[in-house]
Amino acid sequence: MRKVTFGVANSLDNYIARKDGAVDWLRWSDDVMSTITEFWKTIDTIVMGRKTYEVGLKESKGKSNPYPHIKTYVFSRTLKESPDGSVEIISADTAEFVSKLKMKAGKDICVMGGGEIAKSLFEAGLIDEIGFNIHPVLLGRGIPLFHEMNRQIDLELLECRTFEKGCVYVLYRVKK
Amino acid sequence: MRKVTFGVANSLDNYIARKDGAVDWLRWSDDVMSTITEFWKTIDTIVMGRKTYEVGLKESKGKSNPYPHIKTYVFSRTLKESPDGSVEIISADTAEFVSKLKMKAGKDICVMGGGEIAKSLFEAGLIDEIGFNIHPVLLGRGIPLFHEMNRQIDLELLECRTFEKGCVYVLYRVKK
Repeated sequence: MRKVTFGVANSLDNYIARKDGAVDWLRWSDDVMSTITEFWKTIDTIVMGRKTYEVGLKESKGKSNPYPHIKTYVFSRTLKESPDGSVEIISADTAEFVSKLKMKAGKDICVMGGGEIAKSLFEAGLIDEIGFNIHPVLLGRGIPLFHEMNRQIDLELLECRTFEKGCVYVLYRVKK
Repeated sequence: MRKVTFGVANSLDNYIARKDGAVDWLRWSDDVMSTITEFWKTIDTIVMGRKTYEVGLKESKGKSNPYPHIKTYVFSRTLKESPDGSVEIISADTAEFVSKLKMKAGKDICVMGGGEIAKSLFEAGLIDEIGFNIHPVLLGRGIPLFHEMNRQIDLELLECRTFEKGCVYVLYRVKK
């Protein structure tokens, strides 16, 4: 079965963006880029919510898929039409859709962003790994990485290392 | 001036206890204990809120100060009398009190717990270092480590290492 990884960059106080979606506080360095590049070789599918998609669109300056060459599913109840052939808008139940996606042939799957999408996938037991790039900042307020969940998720630390510019990269396996 | 460190054990989703205050999910190991022991040599004062104090009392089974030999200040508007000579109940403004405490002679100061106390001290620029022992678990719900703050706090990573049992220890300096 395909592995589902929840991967994001977060502040130490667990925000993924400012209130207005801004990610100007992200720190890029060669070791971050090479880790992302290696990870992207293992996936061929991204799932995310509409808000994360819109942040990606803004950051990618005019492209209709911020992640070209990767099949992208955007969960939304409001978007109707996809602006790009590689982006599919999904109005179905998130957990049910991802559950079916895991059974299909292909490389691994990445869940981007956070909030409600991650919550429903964690609760449904569909996330296999968590990779966070924890940034050395307390944003104080913003879009939260986590929402309250109906159960505890036990983790096993697989990897921990520091990137340049003071970021801490942690990778966990979700215990089933 | 005395250094103020905000030091806690947290879950990856930034809770410091379950909703009922339980900390049964904490993982103790020799390397955690030796790090805490070394840290405690550098402080002679603890400040905390009433709820954190009550969790400490519960955990220390009958002692009236969970942290004997260390001067303990508990911020509370409801507690009137201290059950122990080494514990002082403070009803004054948290930031103002800690600001004066920093000016006094003595070893360093530890802020325990989280929530409103940490928020007001961060906002007032009174915290110098942050030390977290991040546990490999998503509690899903509980008592939050952070509350929304009125400003961003920039940090510098001083140390990052893994403990036994999958905990990640991070130490940051607060940039002023």
